[in-house]
Amino acid sequence: MEAAETPALFSKKGFYGALMEWAMRDERFKTQLFRFVDVLPTLTSSQEITRHLNEYLGEEQVQISAALRLGLKAASGASWLFGGGIKSQVTGMARQFMLGNDPKEIIEILLKLHKQDTAFTVDVLGEAVVSEPEADQYAQRYLDLLDLLGREVSKRQPPCKSNQGSRGPLPALNVSVKLSALYSQVHPTDPKTAVRHISQRLRPILRRAKELGAFVNFDMESYALKDLTLESFRTIFEESEFAEGPLCGLALQAYLRDSKADLHRMVDWARTQNRRITVRLVKGAYWDYETVMAHQRHWPVPVFAEKAQTDANFEKLSQFLLENDRVVDSAFGTHNVRSIANVLAHAERLGVNPRAFEFQMLYGMADSIKSAVLQIGCRLREYCPVGELLPGMAYLVRRLLENTSNEGFLANKYAKGAGREELLKNPLEIPAPPSVPAPAHAGHEFQNEPLTDFTITKERERMTQAITALRDDLGRRQPLLINNKAVTTAEWLPSLNPANQSEVVGYAAQASITQAEEALSAARAAQPKWARVAAHDRAEFLEKIATLMRRDKAGLCALEVLEAGKNWTEADADVAEAIDFCDFYAAVMRDLGQPKLTQKVAGETNSQHWLPRGVGVIIAPWNFPLAIVTGMTTAAVVAGNTVIVKPSDQTPIIGARLVSLCLEAGLPPGVVNLITGPGSTVGAHLVGHPRLDFIAFTGSKEVGLKIWESAGRTLPGQRDLKKVVCEMGGKNCIIVDSDADLDEAVVGCIASAFGYQGQKCSALSRLIVLEDNYDKFLNRLIAAADSLRVGPAELPGSIIGPVISRDAQQRILAIIETGKKEAKLAWQGSVPDNANACYVPPTIFADVPASSWLFREEIFGPVLAVTRAKDFDEALSLANDSDFALTGGCYSRSPENIALVKAEMVCGNLYINRGITGAVVERQPFGGFKMSGGGTKAGGREYLENFLVPRVITENCLRRGFAPAEES
Amino acid sequence: MEAAETPALFSKKGFYGALMEWAMRDERFKTQLFRFVDVLPTLTSSQEITRHLNEYLGEEQVQISAALRLGLKAASGASWLFGGGIKSQVTGMARQFMLGNDPKEIIEILLKLHKQDTAFTVDVLGEAVVSEPEADQYAQRYLDLLDLLGREVSKRQPPCKSNQGSRGPLPALNVSVKLSALYSQVHPTDPKTAVRHISQRLRPILRRAKELGAFVNFDMESYALKDLTLESFRTIFEESEFAEGPLCGLALQAYLRDSKADLHRMVDWARTQNRRITVRLVKGAYWDYETVMAHQRHWPVPVFAEKAQTDANFEKLSQFLLENDRVVDSAFGTHNVRSIANVLAHAERLGVNPRAFEFQMLYGMADSIKSAVLQIGCRLREYCPVGELLPGMAYLVRRLLENTSNEGFLANKYAKGAGREELLKNPLEIPAPPSVPAPAHAGHEFQNEPLTDFTITKERERMTQAITALRDDLGRRQPLLINNKAVTTAEWLPSLNPANQSEVVGYAAQASITQAEEALSAARAAQPKWARVAAHDRAEFLEKIATLMRRDKAGLCALEVLEAGKNWTEADADVAEAIDFCDFYAAVMRDLGQPKLTQKVAGETNSQHWLPRGVGVIIAPWNFPLAIVTGMTTAAVVAGNTVIVKPSDQTPIIGARLVSLCLEAGLPPGVVNLITGPGSTVGAHLVGHPRLDFIAFTGSKEVGLKIWESAGRTLPGQRDLKKVVCEMGGKNCIIVDSDADLDEAVVGCIASAFGYQGQKCSALSRLIVLEDNYDKFLNRLIAAADSLRVGPAELPGSIIGPVISRDAQQRILAIIETGKKEAKLAWQGSVPDNANACYVPPTIFADVPASSWLFREEIFGPVLAVTRAKDFDEALSLANDSDFALTGGCYSRSPENIALVKAEMVCGNLYINRGITGAVVERQPFGGFKMSGGGTKAGGREYLENFLVPRVITENCLRRGFAPAEES
Repeated sequence: MEAAETPALFSKKGFYGALMEWAMRDERFKTQLFRFVDVLPTLTSSQEITRHLNEYLGEEQVQISAALRLGLKAASGASWLFGGGIKSQVTGMARQFMLGNDPKEIIEILLKLHKQDTAFTVDVLGEAVVSEPEADQYAQRYLDLLDLLGREVSKRQPPCKSNQGSRGPLPALNVSVKLSALYSQVHPTDPKTAVRHISQRLRPILRRAKELGAFVNFDMESYALKDLTLESFRTIFEESEFAEGPLCGLALQAYLRDSKADLHRMVDWARTQNRRITVRLVKGAYWDYETVMAHQRHWPVPVFAEKAQTDANFEKLSQFLLENDRVVDSAFGTHNVRSIANVLAHAERLGVNPRAFEFQMLYGMADSIKSAVLQIGCRLREYCPVGELLPGMAYLVRRLLENTSNEGFLANKYAKGAGREELLKNPLEIPAPPSVPAPAHAGHEFQNEPLTDFTITKERERMTQAITALRDDLGRRQPLLINNKAVTTAEWLPSLNPANQSEVVGYAAQASITQAEEALSAARAAQPKWARVAAHDRAEFLEKIATLMRRDKAGLCALEVLEAGKNWTEADADVAEAIDFCDFYAAVMRDLGQPKLTQKVAGETNSQHWLPRGVGVIIAPWNFPLAIVTGMTTAAVVAGNTVIVKPSDQTPIIGARLVSLCLEAGLPPGVVNLITGPGSTVGAHLVGHPRLDFIAFTGSKEVGLKIWESAGRTLPGQRDLKKVVCEMGGKNCIIVDSDADLDEAVVGCIASAFGYQGQKCSALSRLIVLEDNYDKFLNRLIAAADSLRVGPAELPGSIIGPVISRDAQQRILAIIETGKKEAKLAWQGSVPDNANACYVPPTIFADVPASSWLFREEIFGPVLAVTRAKDFDEALSLANDSDFALTGGCYSRSPENIALVKAEMVCGNLYINRGITGAVVERQPFGGFKMSGGGTKAGGREYLENFLVPRVITENCLRRGFAPAEES
Repeated sequence: MEAAETPALFSKKGFYGALMEWAMRDERFKTQLFRFVDVLPTLTSSQEITRHLNEYLGEEQVQISAALRLGLKAASGASWLFGGGIKSQVTGMARQFMLGNDPKEIIEILLKLHKQDTAFTVDVLGEAVVSEPEADQYAQRYLDLLDLLGREVSKRQPPCKSNQGSRGPLPALNVSVKLSALYSQVHPTDPKTAVRHISQRLRPILRRAKELGAFVNFDMESYALKDLTLESFRTIFEESEFAEGPLCGLALQAYLRDSKADLHRMVDWARTQNRRITVRLVKGAYWDYETVMAHQRHWPVPVFAEKAQTDANFEKLSQFLLENDRVVDSAFGTHNVRSIANVLAHAERLGVNPRAFEFQMLYGMADSIKSAVLQIGCRLREYCPVGELLPGMAYLVRRLLENTSNEGFLANKYAKGAGREELLKNPLEIPAPPSVPAPAHAGHEFQNEPLTDFTITKERERMTQAITALRDDLGRRQPLLINNKAVTTAEWLPSLNPANQSEVVGYAAQASITQAEEALSAARAAQPKWARVAAHDRAEFLEKIATLMRRDKAGLCALEVLEAGKNWTEADADVAEAIDFCDFYAAVMRDLGQPKLTQKVAGETNSQHWLPRGVGVIIAPWNFPLAIVTGMTTAAVVAGNTVIVKPSDQTPIIGARLVSLCLEAGLPPGVVNLITGPGSTVGAHLVGHPRLDFIAFTGSKEVGLKIWESAGRTLPGQRDLKKVVCEMGGKNCIIVDSDADLDEAVVGCIASAFGYQGQKCSALSRLIVLEDNYDKFLNRLIAAADSLRVGPAELPGSIIGPVISRDAQQRILAIIETGKKEAKLAWQGSVPDNANACYVPPTIFADVPASSWLFREEIFGPVLAVTRAKDFDEALSLANDSDFALTGGCYSRSPENIALVKAEMVCGNLYINRGITGAVVERQPFGGFKMSGGGTKAGGREYLENFLVPRVITENCLRRGFAPAEES
C-alpha cells in the first residue's frame, strides 16, 4: 500500500484536489462549498448556477488567503468559478463515488470490478420517501435492479475471486436495502405498523432475490430507525417463506453505544434460528446528525463522542464477530488500515480462515488499501450506489465530508501526511480531548424538558396504560376552585372526546357571575401577601409544579389525547412545553427578582426592580390545552400576581388539572382560582371588571379584539390601566423556493399544515410555491398528504385525528365547501366513517388567488391553500399580504433569498428550512403582531415583564460628605 | 514629638481607640458606625437609640471577626452596645473636637489654650442654613460670640505667646466665618445677589470685629462656593468702611487644582489693595464630597485625585506664600509633619522669620505635633468649633473620617505605625496608583450630558446673550412641517411668555383635519423605507440631533425660559435631558439592532431581533418642553417608526424647534412631521385613526385615559393593535421620618414641591411628616419657602416663576381658595405685582386630612399639602393611599424604615434621602403605574421596546446531516 501512488484525489493536482485541500483549511469555505454542491443538481439553468455560485462562493462570501486563491488558479481550476462547466465538473466529482443510472454504465463498472477480483453490493440511491407511492417506486427499482443484474451476473464465469469464501462460493449478486425508503409513515409510537408495511414491500424483493440466489443486506441508517430495522430483519426472516433464503445480512454501526448489545442479540438470534447471517460492521456515517439531533432533543447522545472510542469499539466488535465465526459471517466495512490489521491479527490468533470473512469499502475511495487487501489474499467487496445525481448528492456530501474530516483515516494519511506510527496507534491509547463545558445559558439554569422517545418500548407501554387508566375514571364533575376550595355550581357542561362524542371526559362547573366575583375577591385578597413572597420562593412553587407534571406526564398526555384529540406525540410535546414554561419562568423570575443597577454613580445607588401588576384573568384556548394555560398562569403568578384561570370550554378538565397541580404544589389560597363557564358572560364580566388589573388571553382574533377594547375603558375605582397580553390567530405562510430541498419541504409543510389537524395558531395555511417547482412539489405534497394515517388520537401512529368539536367540524366543512367555489380543490383526504367522531378530511386547495377568502382568513383546521408565484419577489409580496403576522417560513437554498426573507417577511416567528410549528420555550419565544397579537413573546425572556411594572429606587448614600466605597 | 506619649485616641486602649481601630479594619462597620453617630443627636428616647443601634450595629448588620469582637470586649467597651450611656459616650467623643455651647465652658477651654501658649480661632457650628431667618440667627450668633469673647479676651494679659508675631502682636480674638451660613439662597446663576446678601449680614460682624480689634477669617467650604467666597472677600474688603479693618484673612484649599491660580490672584489683590491679609493654607476637608459630586454631574473633578498630589501642591503653595511674606501673612493648617518641616525649611532658606507665620491645627487633634511646634518656637493656633452637638455632628464625622482614613498622616503614624521614612517621604516621589478604568457601561457607550456650571462667568454671559438674541427674534409664524416641507394654515395661535402675556414668543400653525391626514400619509409612505435604514445609521441621526442641540444649547434654554417660564437651571436641565435621550436611545438601539441568540442549539440558529411598529403620533406636554417631546420622538424614530409630533399648545415653538433640528440632522422626508393645533380635534382624530399604529403620550390623566380607551378600539383596516405609551400625572409623597436629617429634608422638599412652580409630574405634593418632627420641620420648611426668590424665569436666581398660562393660574388660584376650606393654610408666599404675568403664590397647607381633595387630586402647581402621621406605619399607609404611583420619597436615617419604604412604597420612582424630581436618563428610568401610567420607563433600557415588536428567526443549518461548527 505504501508503494502505491497517492490517489488522484489527494494528489493536490487538478481541480478536485485543490478544492479538498481548501475545504480542509477553511471551515467556512467547506460549508459554502458543500452547500453549493448540495443545491447544484436542482439548478436547471446556467443563470441559476452562476447566481448560486456567487451567493455561496463569491469573493464577498468566502474569505480565502491570497495563497489559496493563487493555488487554486495554479491548479488550473480558476475557470470553474466562471465557466458553465461547473455542473459537469461536480457531476464528475460525484461519479467518482457513484455508478450513475445508466444500466449499461452500471454493468460496465461492475464488470471492471469483477476483473479486479472485487465483489460488489449495490445500493439504490433515492430521494427521501415522503409518500407511499414513492415507497412503491423505490421497491420497484430494487426489483428492476435485481432483474437487470440477475441477467448479467449469471453470465460471468468464473465467479469473482472475492466471492470465493472459505465455506464455498458466495452469491455474485448482492444488494443493500434502506428500509426507510420502503415506508413513508414510520412513526416512533407505532413500530408494528411500520414493520408490517415494510415487510409488505420487502417480500417481493426477497422473493426475487431468493429466486436469483442473490444476497440481501439491510443497511443501517439513523439511530431512530435502528430498532425498527433490527425488528424488521428478525420479523421477516422468521417468516416461513424466508426462513431458508435468501441469504441475508445487516449492517451494525460501531459508533453506537448500543452496538455491542445489538450485535450480541443478533448473533444470539442467528444461533437460535440456526441461520447463518452476515453482519457488516461499519463505523457509522451519521455522526454529526446523531449528535446534533440528540443535543436538540436533550436525549442521550447515542454515538461515542470520540472517534478513537468508535475505533476501539470497532476492534472489540470485530473480535467478537470472529469469535462467532461459526454462527455469523463477518464483513468489515472500513478504510482504516489499523482496523483492518486488527481484524487480520485477531483472525490469525483465533485461527479463522482469512477467506471466511470479507472487507467492504466504498466505491471510489481508498484504492491503494483495496489493492493491498486483495494482494494479501483477502476478500473485498465494494459498496456501489446507483441512481440519479440529485438524490445522490446527500451521498456525495457525506463522502466529501469524510475526505475533509480531521478524523478520517484517509484524510489523515494523504492530506495531512500523518506518519505510520500515528495512523496505526491503538485507539485505546489516544487520550480523550479535554471536555468542553456545556453551553452556558445567560444568567440562569434552564433546560428544556426532553420529549418522550417513543421508540422505547417502555414509553409506549406507559402511554397505553395511562389511556386505559384514564378511561376508567372519566365522567367526573369538576367543580370551580376558589380560594383553594371546591365550589359546585347549578349547571354543568360535559366535555366530550372529539373522537367519540358519546364519551364524556368530564363535566365542567358553570360559574355564575356571583361566583366569578367571589373568585375575584379571593384573588384580590390574596394578592398583597403573595406579592411579598420572595421571587425566589415563588419560583420554587413553579419548579414544584413542573415536578408534579413530570410525575403525571403520561396521565396528562392521556387526558389531552381524550379531551383535546391530540395524538401521542403532540400531547407529549404540549406537556413538555407546560413543564418548560414552569421551569423557564421560574428561572427568569429568579433573575428579575434581583434589582439591577441602572448606572454606576458615585454617592448614589440606582437600581431597577419589578413589582407585580395585581390581579389578572387568564383566558386560555383548547389547542395547546395544558401548555398555554400553564404558560400564562405561571408567568402571572411567579411575577407575584394572583389570577383567575378560565380554561376553554373544550378542555376544562385539563385546565382544572393545572389548577389542581398548583394547589398540590402548595400555592396559598386565592393565588390561583379556577372559573369555568361561558366566556360571553362570565369571561366578559371579569374582563370588564374595574377591580381587575390585567388579562392574559390566547384565542381568536374576534374575542381578542373585544377584550382589547374592553380593557381600554378605565372605570371609576379602577386601580391600573388594564394590561392585555393578547395572542390571536395567524394565516401563516411558507414560501418554497425553486431551489428548495423538496424532500425536506414536503415533510415540513405537511407537518406544519396538518399537525393536530391544523388547529395551531402557528399552523401553515398558505403555501406559496415558485412556478419552477409548483407542479412537481404539489404532486409530491399531495401524495405525502394522502399517505398520512387518519384515526383517533389514542391510536399510536395516528397523524390526523378529529377536530376539537362538532361545531368546529361543521364550521370547517362549510368553509371547505365555500372554498371550492374560490379555488381548485387539489386534494381531499378520506377519514374514518364514524359519525361519533368530529373528523374533517384534510384538504388542499391549489391555485388559490390572493384575493380569496381561503387565502386571507384563518380557518383553524386541516385546510391548506397553495398559491403559485412567478418569482421570489412575488412570493414574498404574497406572503406579506395578510392581516396576520404570526409564523412564517421559507425553504430555500439561495443565501440571498434566505437573507431577503429574514429581512422582509412580516411575522413574529420565522423559520428557515424547517417546519413553522413547534416553537420551543426559550429557544423560539413565540408570538406575533398585526392582527396576531400585541407583540408579546411567550417563552421569551421579556414575557414576564408583561405581568410586572418596573420601579426604580434611588438612594443617596452620601451622608456628611461620606459615601462608603461599596455603595458609590 | 517622638518622645511624646501616643495620644489616647490611638492608644488602642479604651472604648474610643477600639472603635477607631475596628472602623479602620472594616469598611462596612465604619460606615455603619459613622451613620449611627450621625443620626444619634436627633434621637430623643433611649428606646429610639437602642433601635437605631441595633439597626446599624446589631450582629446581623455588621460582620466582624471574633477577634475584633473579643478585642472590643476586652477593651471594656462591651457595655456600650447595650447600656444606655451611648449618647453620653458619643457626646464625649464629640467633645474631644468641639468646645460645646456653654459660654463658661468655652471660656475655660480657651483659657486653657492660652496657658499652653496656643492661640485660637473660633468657628460657630450650625445646621445648614435653609432660610433667611436662619441666616439672621447665624449672623447674630457671631455677634454674640464676638461680644462674649471680646469681653473675656481683653482681660487676658500678657497676650498669648502664639499671638506674638514678628511684626508685632496679633489680635487675641480670632473668628472664622462660613459664608454659606449667611445667605440661604445662594444660586449659581446669580452670585451678585448672593454677595449682596452675604455682605449685608457680614457688615455688622466686621464692624463689631473692627471695634474689638478682632481678626475675621473666611472659611472655605465646597468648591461650588469657592469663587463666591473669594468674590465676597474682595468685594467687602474693598468697601471704604472696611478698607482699613478689621484684620482679615481667608482659607485656601491645596487639594483644589485651582488653588495656585486663586492664591496668586489673592496675593495680587492684597498687593494692589496694599492690604496685608492672612492666607490660611489648608489641604481641604471635602475630598469625598467634591469627587462624588463631580462624578455625578460629569463635571471636571476640582480636587487632585491623589493625596500625594495635594501634599505636593501644599508644599509648592507654602513656598509661594513664604516668598510673598512681604504681602501676606501665612497660616499653615496641617497635621502633617512633613508639610510642617517643609514650611520650616523654606522659611529658613528664604530668611523668613519663623514667627512671621503660624501653624493652625484642629482642636482636639495632633497634640504631640502641637507641642513639638510650640517647643521649636513657632506660633500655633487652634481651630475651635463652638456650638450644639447636633449641628456639630457633621464636623465630628469629618474628624472621625480623618482619623480612620488610610491616607491621613495621623492615622498612618499612630494607627498603622508607619515609619519615619514613609511618613516624611517627599510626596512627589510617591508613585501614583494604577489608574482604575472608568466604570463600564453594560454594552454601550452612553454618558449623560453634563449640566451647565453656572458658577462659571462665561456660562452666565452666554445665557444672558442668548435671551437677548432670542427676544430680538420673537413673534414669527411657525408653520407645520410635513414631509420636510413647511405648510401654512388658516389659523394661528400665539404662544405667550408666562411672565409677560403681552410678549408673543411665536405663532403656531393650527392644522386642519385634512392636514393631519396629509401628515399621516407622509409618515405612512416614509415608514417602510425608514425601517430598512440600518439601526446603526438611525442611531447616528439621533447622535447628530444631540450634537445640534449641544451647539444650540443656550438658545434652546433661552426659548424654554421665555416660552415655558423655566428658570435657567431648570431649562438647562431640560435641554441636557433632551440630549441624553438622543444619545441614550441611540446607544440602546445600536444594541437592540444586533440580533440576540435565544438559546444555543446544535444544528439550528435561533435569534431574536426587533421590528418597528409603524406610524405613531407623539403627544407631548409643555412642562419639560424639549426633553419629553424629544424622548418620545427619538425613541420612536430610532426604532424605525415614523411619527407625527404634536407638541403642547403652550410650547409649540419649542416642539417645532425639535422637528427643525431633526430635519437639519438629515432625517428623510416624512419620518418626523410636525402638527400643531387643538388636541380635542386634530389630536383626537389622529389617535383614533385606523392607519395609526401607536401613540406616545405624556400629559394629564384625563386625556391619557381617553387616549387609552380610543386606542382600545380596533377599526376595520387597522394594521395593528394600537400600542399606547401613556405617562400621566402623580400625587407624589415624601415621608419625613422622625430621625430625618432635617437640613437635607427641608432643602429636598422645597425643591421637589416648588421647582418649576410644582409643574412637574414628579413634583412633591403630599408631605407626610412624623409627629415628633412635625412642628419643627414645618416651621423650618415654611421659613425656607418664604426665603425663595420669586420672579420672571429670565432673571438669574429666580427660583419661583409664573405658572405656564393664565388658565393655569386661574385654575390653581381657585384650587387654593377651595383648599382653604379643607385644610389649614399654613403659608402663602408673595409674588410680584404684575398683571401681565401668571404668578401663583406658592402655598403650603398643613394638617391636610387624607380624605381631602388637596390630598388626593393632582394640582400641578406650587401647592403643597402637609399631613401629620403618628408613626412610620401610618405615614406609609397615608403615602400609599393614592390613585397615583409616580414618584415617592423618604427622608430617614433608620435602616429598617428605609428598607420598609423600599419594599412597600407604591410608586414608579422612589428616592431615599434626596429630592424626588430630576430623574436622569439611564440613571433613573422614569415612569409610574396605577393612574400615573402604563408602567413604561422613559430613559430606561426597555423603553425602546414599546416602539418595537420582537421577531424570532430560526434557521435550520443542518444540511445533509452536516452543520458547520460556527452555526451549531
